[in-house]
Amino acid sequence: MGLELYLDLLSQGCRMVYIFAKKNNIPFEFKHVELFKDSILGKKMPGGNTQEQSHDGQPYREEFGKVNILKKVPALKDGTFTLAESTAILLYLSQKYHTPDHWYPSDLQKRAQVDEYLSWHHTNIRANAPKTLWIKVLIPLFTGQTLPSEKLQNVLKELATSLKQFEEKFLQDKPFIVGSEISLADLVAIVELMQPIGVGCDIFEDRPKLLEWRSRVEEAVGKELFQEAHKMILNIKELRNIQVDPHLKEHLAPVLMKMLK
Amino acid sequence: MGLELYLDLLSQGCRMVYIFAKKNNIPFEFKHVELFKDSILGKKMPGGNTQEQSHDGQPYREEFGKVNILKKVPALKDGTFTLAESTAILLYLSQKYHTPDHWYPSDLQKRAQVDEYLSWHHTNIRANAPKTLWIKVLIPLFTGQTLPSEKLQNVLKELATSLKQFEEKFLQDKPFIVGSEISLADLVAIVELMQPIGVGCDIFEDRPKLLEWRSRVEEAVGKELFQEAHKMILNIKELRNIQVDPHLKEHLAPVLMKMLK
Repeated sequence: MGLELYLDLLSQGCRMVYIFAKKNNIPFEFKHVELFKDSILGKKMPGGNTQEQSHDGQPYREEFGKVNILKKVPALKDGTFTLAESTAILLYLSQKYHTPDHWYPSDLQKRAQVDEYLSWHHTNIRANAPKTLWIKVLIPLFTGQTLPSEKLQNVLKELATSLKQFEEKFLQDKPFIVGSEISLADLVAIVELMQPIGVGCDIFEDRPKLLEWRSRVEEAVGKELFQEAHKMILNIKELRNIQVDPHLKEHLAPVLMKMLK
Repeated sequence: MGLELYLDLLSQGCRMVYIFAKKNNIPFEFKHVELFKDSILGKKMPGGNTQEQSHDGQPYREEFGKVNILKKVPALKDGTFTLAESTAILLYLSQKYHTPDHWYPSDLQKRAQVDEYLSWHHTNIRANAPKTLWIKVLIPLFTGQTLPSEKLQNVLKELATSLKQFEEKFLQDKPFIVGSEISLADLVAIVELMQPIGVGCDIFEDRPKLLEWRSRVEEAVGKELFQEAHKMILNIKELRNIQVDPHLKEHLAPVLMKMLK
């Protein structure tokens, strides 16, 4: 049994894994999962992972904040070995398939710079960029309510602080985060930053340095593959038709409403 | 010029780096930084990093949320090379000093399990455990106000969900996260979980499996070193005497008050 990747390209973590595997000609079986439907949250996962069930046997209880849901994809299955967490999957694939050195450099300092970015990413870009999709599409979809524009403005302001640090600390005047070639750090960053674009928040406007970096990353990945991976997220009409499991909707809506207060 | 580590052992990220370096007999110069005082936030850092200054030249503006402040320690300087982010520093040290394999196993699947934990940690244990210190000590110190007990209860409830997942997904029935020996994953987890202990939230009570794991980790690290690294955080009286730069207090208090709403 070969490599299986459980993905929904709506998720930025899935897109990074998909792009990385395709770009490096890693053979895998694409197991399509619908993030909020059939899903990730229990019965159809390999091994029938039911840890998310609550004590009274009801699935989808308070264990599911938005972060937990996103964290369930991507998933990797390689024989009997299973692995979650997108960056762990990227590192596993890069080592198992001996992908070109620039992705995760063997040079000690360059590798450390990739690791530094991957860690910083979590509490900065990762903490802010996806909220745009939640505010503009997912929360209305789950709760039937639209949010005051102030919510989005606050998120974009926080994201602006992260993007300033991204440009000044990580990108500086280099073509890519660790120098002249693309690495996992750039890939992890770009897929996250495409999430706001999909919902009409053009964070690259008025940021020429960031826009040039984006073009270089798209070029390095291959424009066709990049577009293919982002087809769904860049089609906001399609986003509004995302299928949501009614049970999940029922249980998540109150949590989301609470988050909005 | 040898290895320099800029640390304040109040910070969990600093404790993991300190314990790792000491345990592995890595020679370094301990550059003591007071997290909220002399600090991390500008003038005394190697290279005079001033990126945190705001546009009008006033330090400590809105760029400083609590996460940003915590993220500035630990810092590593190795010749002209500088590095932030505690996990990136651990990985750098483990590779540069060829520490024993169990810390970051060369076995592909075990290494992937360490990476998986390190990624999960950010949005789970890391997102919840430190809030206990903020609620019980730091926010009162910065704002002069104590918080309703409900705030702490909510954080402990969220942490309980993370700890359940930690036991069921990561620890299972193994002595350590990736098997029979300690790895970076255990070290990253334990220092974070000692943060609540310091402020009187005994999260190990009623969790015998977690408590046994803690004992094994302390044993593997060495009890004396473990106690030495945690001396400050385990002395709540000392915690209440933390020195805070008046400028920082002035600028951070409104942000913290906003967070409480």
